[in-house]
Formats: sequence, structure tokens, C-alpha cells
Amino acid sequence: MKNYRLKIQYDGTRYRGWQRLAGRDDTIQGKIENVLSRLLDVPVQLDGAGRTDAGVHARCQVANVHLACGWEPAEMRQKLNEYLPEDIRILEVSQAGERFHSRLNALAKVYEYHLLKEGCYDVFARKYSWQMMQPLDTGRMRRAAEYLTGEHDFRGFCTKASKKKSTVRRLDAIEIRETEDSVYLRFEGNGFLYNMVRILTGTLVEIGAGKREPESIRDILQQKERSLAGETAPAQGLTLLAVRYD
Amino acid sequence: MKNYRLKIQYDGTRYRGWQRLAGRDDTIQGKIENVLSRLLDVPVQLDGAGRTDAGVHARCQVANVHLACGWEPAEMRQKLNEYLPEDIRILEVSQAGERFHSRLNALAKVYEYHLLKEGCYDVFARKYSWQMMQPLDTGRMRRAAEYLTGEHDFRGFCTKASKKKSTVRRLDAIEIRETEDSVYLRFEGNGFLYNMVRILTGTLVEIGAGKREPESIRDILQQKERSLAGETAPAQGLTLLAVRYD
Repeated sequence: MKNYRLKIQYDGTRYRGWQRLAGRDDTIQGKIENVLSRLLDVPVQLDGAGRTDAGVHARCQVANVHLACGWEPAEMRQKLNEYLPEDIRILEVSQAGERFHSRLNALAKVYEYHLLKEGCYDVFARKYSWQMMQPLDTGRMRRAAEYLTGEHDFRGFCTKASKKKSTVRRLDAIEIRETEDSVYLRFEGNGFLYNMVRILTGTLVEIGAGKREPESIRDILQQKERSLAGETAPAQGLTLLAVRYD
Repeated sequence: MKNYRLKIQYDGTRYRGWQRLAGRDDTIQGKIENVLSRLLDVPVQLDGAGRTDAGVHARCQVANVHLACGWEPAEMRQKLNEYLPEDIRILEVSQAGERFHSRLNALAKVYEYHLLKEGCYDVFARKYSWQMMQPLDTGRMRRAAEYLTGEHDFRGFCTKASKKKSTVRRLDAIEIRETEDSVYLRFEGNGFLYNMVRILTGTLVEIGAGKREPESIRDILQQKERSLAGETAPAQGLTLLAVRYD
């Protein structure tokens, strides 16, 4: 058995997210597993580093798969790209150590959310951004971001939190970059809960728009109540940029 | 009558190009004219600076339209964006002098062609670029570009050249910019013939791929024969970036 490591890029617009769903043919994991299964005539399980939601994109998702086949990595990449739809591309295939696991070995993930400023348009980014309807004060957003970085219980910033599993995560950095027509929020952390980046974004946007105070972040972290946080930002503005390993 | 000047952005993927076509509803000019006509209940003629081909995009096309209406420029922009499809956006409306004409007053236009290098992928650029199947030597392409800049008869680099009209144009600059995964060709000139940027691109790509010599440009310019030039590059990689005025 060889353990192949894949770097994958996808436009999530048409898909129900990364994770395979029984009986459906519109997930990223499912599409790639199906192509491999058909080519090799065996069942295939591909493990991805991050389970991106329906509509979320990836510049560089990482996954791995154990296969008993003679393919060189470059051959596997070429075959996959030949049979996959054009909105899913395999950027790179390499052979990994036997024990490498894309999710369990990931040290950090980097997500970016693209906000298009009020009154600014970019037709080329329309499927990859969230159009703002009010001006944003990035100074306020940066102050709020300071409360968020570090290790916290992010239970208030996630959907369907498990009662049994820990909701403590370490958010290493939130970088807020402003251009003439956009605001980019880049989140780097050791793990993200379900919808966490989108709820963080929705909350930061409300703070930037003056609808809530930067200090409200402290209450959400302390009280761990989803209802205290902002709305979940739309999936289409979010992209998984990178997964970091040792 | 007021003369309104519009800056327009569009994703050309779904359209048959800029220019209105009788009986069709899938041109950029037609879409905008129809919205204005319906709002004002009069026939409307919108003049664009560049007649982009079917499938070609624009970051900033310029057009003007004479209308007897009381709209403030910002009001017109808002109304148009309300009724236009999301792949056509009005970036700006301003009031121009009575004699301003978007095409006749244009001093120069800037087009950019996006080539994705062999073996490189970018799913987010897949509708806005041309995927190369061989490596490109940009040094060779730059040498060829030197023969092209300046004032020349570009008859050999256009489709359906008119026998009566001049095919002499001034190409001010061809800038060739290489990144890790792409090569961008930026053309600035005082006017472009039908398909000219796409034929220039197709020819430069053949030179970059080693299929023809940079010096072959001289022959095409001298002999003015379309059949001597390279293939017409696909429309989807081309974007009108800007139109320059005094």
C-alpha cells in the first residue's frame, strides 16, 4: 500500500461541501473517491484535512489516500485531472510516509473571507465574496479580533456544538487586510469548529458596521452562547487557503 | 439632453459580445440599452469604447449615452445595477460634456490576456484564462513583442480586414509579466482591429512554445497575410482593462 498525499483546489459553488454524503454525487470528497474507485475498481477512502461546508472554496486543501497500486504520483495527478470536472483540480500528488494523516497531522489551517465593500463591485469575485451593504470600520474589527486570538472555548461561535467534545481551539491570528474595494479576513488556527469562521466573520462584520461593540466578543467567549454572536456569513465568501504541517 | 458617461464591468462568459445584435438578448450593449429603454420608455443608444468579442470580459469598459431625463449620475448607476444581471455591473456614472464620445475620444485601450502555464491550475481563473499545454519561453515572446510595438499595418493580425479602411494602428506597449503559475500579456494601443489582440496572443504563444521564430513577426507585418500569423487565442482569456482619455 502507498500513502498518497494530494493538494486539491476547488470552486465550491456547485458542491454540497467536502464531505461525502450517501447517495449524492455532489461533494468534493465523493467526486474524487468515485474517480479513483472507477479507475482502480476498489472502494477508496480519501481523508481531507478540513471538511469545508457547502459552497466554500479551497485554494489548497490537503488529503491522503492509501492505495495498492503502482501509480507514480505524477501519473495519479494526471489521471485524476483527466476525469475530474474542471472546478476540481489536483495541484500536486506526492508519496507520504505510511503514518501521515492529512487531518490528524495538520498543525494549522488558514482560511480567508473576502468582503466586497459597500458600493464596490467585482463581477469576477461575485461568486467568491460577500457584498457589503454598509461601510465597515476595520479599526473596530481589529480591536475585536484581539479578543479572539489565543486559546478559547469557541462554543458560542459554532453551530451544533457537541456536548461531549471539546470546543476549545487556538486561534493564532486574524489578519485584516483592506484594499480599495475589499476587506480580507484571514484566520489561522489549530482547528475550527462547525461554521466557526463564518460566525466569526458575521460577528466581525456587525462590529465593523457599528451594530455591536468590539467588547461584545468577551461576553460571547465567556457565556458560550451561540445566540449572542452575529449571523453566519454566507459560504461563498470563504476559502480554505492552506493547511500547515511540520 | 444630458450626456452620461458609464464605467462598466462584465464577465463576458454568457454573452455574444458587446455589440447589440438584432433579435438577440445576449449582448452587453443590448442588456444595458434594454434596461434604460424600459425605465425611460424611449429608444436608447449606448456607445461603447471597445466592441469586445463574444466571451471577452471587461474590468472597465467606457460608454456614453445621451438621455433627456432628470437622473443624477448616482441614481442612474443604482437603477441600472438594480435591473442588470449580476455579471454586468455599472462601476461609475458621471456627467460628461455634450461632445464626449466614448469611442471617438478614446486615446488608448488596454487589454490583458491571461495564460495559465502548463501543469498549473487555478480553478478560480478557469473561465478567464487559457490553459497552456507546453512550457513558454517568455524571453522569446519579449523579443517578438519588440517587433510589434510602434505604428504598423496590422492587416496580417486581423480577421475580415476591410479593403477600404486603414488597418494601420499604433501599439504603444506589450508588457509580458510572468508569475509562478501564469503569464500575462498586456497590450496598450490607440486602436485594435477585429480579433487583433487574440491573434497577437496566439502568435506570441507559438513563439513562446518554440513553434515559430520571433523574427517571423517581421514577415507577417511586411506581407500583411493573416495566414502567416498564429491561431486566434480563445476569447475567454481576454479582458479589456481600461480605456484612456485626455
